[in-house]
Amino acid sequence: MRIDVLSLFPNMFTPMRESIIGKTIERGLVDFQVTDFRDYTDNKHNKVDDEIYGGGQGMLLMPQPIFDAMDAIEAEAGSRGRVILMDPAGKTFNQAMAEELAQEEHLTFIAGHYEGYDERIRNLVTDEISLGDFVLTGGELGAMVVIDATVRLLDEALGDQMSAVDDSFSTGLLEYPQYTRPADFRGMKVPDVLMSGHHANIATWKRKEALRRTYLRRPDLLTDYDFTKEERQLLKEIKAEEANEI
Amino acid sequence: MRIDVLSLFPNMFTPMRESIIGKTIERGLVDFQVTDFRDYTDNKHNKVDDEIYGGGQGMLLMPQPIFDAMDAIEAEAGSRGRVILMDPAGKTFNQAMAEELAQEEHLTFIAGHYEGYDERIRNLVTDEISLGDFVLTGGELGAMVVIDATVRLLDEALGDQMSAVDDSFSTGLLEYPQYTRPADFRGMKVPDVLMSGHHANIATWKRKEALRRTYLRRPDLLTDYDFTKEERQLLKEIKAEEANEI
Repeated sequence: MRIDVLSLFPNMFTPMRESIIGKTIERGLVDFQVTDFRDYTDNKHNKVDDEIYGGGQGMLLMPQPIFDAMDAIEAEAGSRGRVILMDPAGKTFNQAMAEELAQEEHLTFIAGHYEGYDERIRNLVTDEISLGDFVLTGGELGAMVVIDATVRLLDEALGDQMSAVDDSFSTGLLEYPQYTRPADFRGMKVPDVLMSGHHANIATWKRKEALRRTYLRRPDLLTDYDFTKEERQLLKEIKAEEANEI
Repeated sequence: MRIDVLSLFPNMFTPMRESIIGKTIERGLVDFQVTDFRDYTDNKHNKVDDEIYGGGQGMLLMPQPIFDAMDAIEAEAGSRGRVILMDPAGKTFNQAMAEELAQEEHLTFIAGHYEGYDERIRNLVTDEISLGDFVLTGGELGAMVVIDATVRLLDEALGDQMSAVDDSFSTGLLEYPQYTRPADFRGMKVPDVLMSGHHANIATWKRKEALRRTYLRRPDLLTDYDFTKEERQLLKEIKAEEANEI
């Protein structure tokens, strides 16, 4: 997969050289390129922004540097691929989108900073993505989040580093509480059942605590959940137990 | 404001030294500290994780290094402040949470990587935050997103760099399309009304296009929107226009 990013702050992308994502780049599974579109300005002061027609506070990114940078990527890579604009008005990012993007051969991200985009830049774009209902100083962190969620899905990137916690969204339930050594830490103890070696009891405990956490924190996930008969019974117990807690 | 981060990948936080957030740190408005909790392990191999009691794929972060790192922060800073765990089972981050966190004097983030946390680590935590319904390779990018959204709200950090686009979530509508130079770029033209100098027409156009974009992309935002009489009329026109488009 080739991933391009257009940004005025190429130094912000150092996290992509670390950890799992960094390894996929080192191993050549992902060709990651950051283009500073200030290098593509056709004015002598390397200006990338200008005032807003019709008035308005702040400045907007001009179309010219971004269009020309995109042309250069297309000439070099043979395609632009999916072109993703990080924007608060975009579709909210989720796991299904990460899975879809992981199928592509080429992704190009446009990351602005502080300011808005000239509307015509959207003509280059196939997808507008928002991380959520909050405002960031720029699109760089958002682009990195989308890249991280996508690249970790490439089979080769995960290898055996995939851990139990990653299953949060694939089972449809939140993860049950998990414990490691020591069995007693500052007086806080691991539940006896997990140390019992009794596999059936452990399995039931895990299922019940996953249901409890989901019921308490994300009851919305249970609306479409396909319960087994045992899980229905466990949920009944949980509701009774939690009602007694109050 | 003091911001601490506990992470095994301190090099991932270089984006916090750039741009607006970097300037708030340089100017001393934010004291930003990253602690590698591997430095606090009490075993000779500096192990930070171990196998899961009761079985399970992968490894879990052990409580000891994180508790001891937290004690060191508390000893140095005089408090732990709000302690935020980045976790897919947490509350989904939004602008109201950023506004709340911006009021605090001390925030401490715990960012894990690949693997889950020993449940007892949650005893240290005041807030569990998720960026959204997707899985990342670690909590570092998520912590940076929350820090960026929060620090940009500190009055002094914004200064006059605040731009029109940042208003997306404060007016309750998405931003209208905006244009800057040139008036004609590769045959794509700025709407005439924005070049007309007619202030009342420009204001109406902006209001209508903000409503249109919100209606087309985020109709959910209109459910609780407090319409003026003029806006009701504009929305009626938009609905008729969009119906004709099909």
